Amino acid sequence: MKRLNIGLFGFGNVGRGLYDVLGRIESDSVHIRRICVRDINKERGVDAEFTDDADAIFNDSEINLIVEVIDDAEAAYSIVKRALKSRIPVVSGNKKMLGHHILELIDLQEQYNTPLLYDASACGSIPVIRNLEEYYDNDLLCSVKGILNGSSNFILSKIFNENMSYGDALRLAQELGFAESNPTLDIDGWDSLYKLIIITVHAFGVYVSPDEILTYGISTMNDSDIRFAREKDRRIKLVAHVEKVDDRLIMCVLPQLISRNKYIYSVEDEFNGVVIKGLFYDKQFMFGRGAGGHPTGSAVLSDITACGYNYRYEYKKRNDSVLPHYTTDHTFRIYFRYRTEEQLSLLTFSKIREQYTSEGYSYIIGDVSIANLKAHQEELRTGDCFVAAYPLD
Amino acid sequence: MKRLNIGLFGFGNVGRGLYDVLGRIESDSVHIRRICVRDINKERGVDAEFTDDADAIFNDSEINLIVEVIDDAEAAYSIVKRALKSRIPVVSGNKKMLGHHILELIDLQEQYNTPLLYDASACGSIPVIRNLEEYYDNDLLCSVKGILNGSSNFILSKIFNENMSYGDALRLAQELGFAESNPTLDIDGWDSLYKLIIITVHAFGVYVSPDEILTYGISTMNDSDIRFAREKDRRIKLVAHVEKVDDRLIMCVLPQLISRNKYIYSVEDEFNGVVIKGLFYDKQFMFGRGAGGHPTGSAVLSDITACGYNYRYEYKKRNDSVLPHYTTDHTFRIYFRYRTEEQLSLLTFSKIREQYTSEGYSYIIGDVSIANLKAHQEELRTGDCFVAAYPLD
Repeated sequence: MKRLNIGLFGFGNVGRGLYDVLGRIESDSVHIRRICVRDINKERGVDAEFTDDADAIFNDSEINLIVEVIDDAEAAYSIVKRALKSRIPVVSGNKKMLGHHILELIDLQEQYNTPLLYDASACGSIPVIRNLEEYYDNDLLCSVKGILNGSSNFILSKIFNENMSYGDALRLAQELGFAESNPTLDIDGWDSLYKLIIITVHAFGVYVSPDEILTYGISTMNDSDIRFAREKDRRIKLVAHVEKVDDRLIMCVLPQLISRNKYIYSVEDEFNGVVIKGLFYDKQFMFGRGAGGHPTGSAVLSDITACGYNYRYEYKKRNDSVLPHYTTDHTFRIYFRYRTEEQLSLLTFSKIREQYTSEGYSYIIGDVSIANLKAHQEELRTGDCFVAAYPLD
Repeated sequence: MKRLNIGLFGFGNVGRGLYDVLGRIESDSVHIRRICVRDINKERGVDAEFTDDADAIFNDSEINLIVEVIDDAEAAYSIVKRALKSRIPVVSGNKKMLGHHILELIDLQEQYNTPLLYDASACGSIPVIRNLEEYYDNDLLCSVKGILNGSSNFILSKIFNENMSYGDALRLAQELGFAESNPTLDIDGWDSLYKLIIITVHAFGVYVSPDEILTYGISTMNDSDIRFAREKDRRIKLVAHVEKVDDRLIMCVLPQLISRNKYIYSVEDEFNGVVIKGLFYDKQFMFGRGAGGHPTGSAVLSDITACGYNYRYEYKKRNDSVLPHYTTDHTFRIYFRYRTEEQLSLLTFSKIREQYTSEGYSYIIGDVSIANLKAHQEELRTGDCFVAAYPLD
């Protein structure tokens, strides 16, 4: 393995985690040479070379690897682009940036013959991308489904298992360093969405842009929804899901009422869990910490080490002769809690299976298309209503 | 990826699974050229070039990959050695052979600069070796623990969940193709042991020979043991376990009374589950089918594809400056069901925690050393008695 001199961008939760992990394992071959931060005057209590000038990193000829773990997706985008164009290998943890720009970054990797690794971006400590790339590349993949956001899952666990209020659970998640600085990224499903897009590129060779995919989170979930789930012996989980149905690909991020016999039912707290389904090996379940400085820092270090061994993603699935085409023309069974007739009229049910109305609480269970949900995702997100997939057992 | 012309040894459950999987994915780059079997007259209903002469494979200059999925460990050993010495890359599924000869085979790989891959040998469809090699290589690994044998786990599940008798469960496992042709390999823990040895080489860089490791299975488990486990709300699982304790390494294969809050509690039927624990990412759990022709055939194909991309194991941990040293000087809390005072006197309890005696059923719960259990493993295996680890919750 070659010696790596890292130019690190960002010293938040993950950057700090990486620093700690490196200090602890006493690696001879990996060394953080400079750290670029926004506020150079902030006291960080570590003995390292800080700068607030990106040029100080890019112009340092000793630096042979850029690691980018900042929050700001636009800034991350320009760092990664600049690194690739300068032919410096780069590791990124920014799923939002990747979710938007991954196609261009695949092209740049090829054009400049320089690798970009981002396994740490997709599921914290679970090596889902690496396994999709290398191990499951030859099976006929059916679906990838999972809990990809540790923060929202932590909140759901606290609500379901400890009867905590939504606000208290969110505050606790932030205190523990599990939540993004902007919690709506987690809670409204965006973070899961970006990860799902990255996973789909590696699993099925298809890129779908964020604004085309149904994305709906848990911010409007209330006590009635929780009670309903409990009565049915289910838990509400925020699930990201991509599935090949014949030659079509469906994708969404949507809360789901999960029954006890499913693997992801028991994924609790800040953990992530991914179920990969293939024709031959059936179901594979991977489970691990999806958030937190040390687990994510450790995952970033796995990408760094892989760079040291000249590993790069092959994006093999993108070369398949026939790729599935993305569609929203697919029907789900859902639970929809609503307040007004106007809300109810947003959705066109191809089949109604159950309906309950009372003064304070009304819901309907039935089949709607992803396209229909997608068309109204904003109204459904902002109104006093809640949608969750409600699959048959 | 280069085109692979395979010389396949063995056309049992796994060989047949591989053949089916390859037929289904219609790969352009992987092709089975010849299949060497013991009985060439057996009707197999497939259109392929069969031979019973190993030379027909080794002398075919078109063959650039040997895949060995036969049952006989000694024959597998000579095939793999001959392949490496002929500089033909080789994929093996034979854990018994690897468990005995892995050190020599690592040397041969180096000496002849030819790779040997065997991910399929360790946990069916779970890529545990590949992940230990590549992804978890830089964390400070604490332990690997899991259910590594699908067949014995299938039997335990049927007994615990469906009240099936031991004999019926074993017959069913054999009918479904989950059990080895010699069931004691599964039931008495040998299959798990060989996998544990392979995993330990990749996880900790240490090889320990099979006869040095406590290996005890489920063949003497009876209804009293099952009732005891149920009363404690636990399940009996056959667990393989390697753990670093300071600078020492402990290893064993032993039934364990598993409480509900453990990941492996819910690994049922022919599935395998592995918990990898590291200092930074905490616990990682991987779960998938550990037996059956198609899942294992699919895993063998992953090794084949990796060969096509010139992948090879690095055995990085073996280069660590300080390796932990293997010891049996470590104490476990166990449940021991016995019939005679003579049996009881085999074990030296450093602490006795519970004791129950009745006419038909007596047990003791207390702390014994691995060395003590290891010294009497044969008597404990053949007598009317049963040992299981019984960890505190």
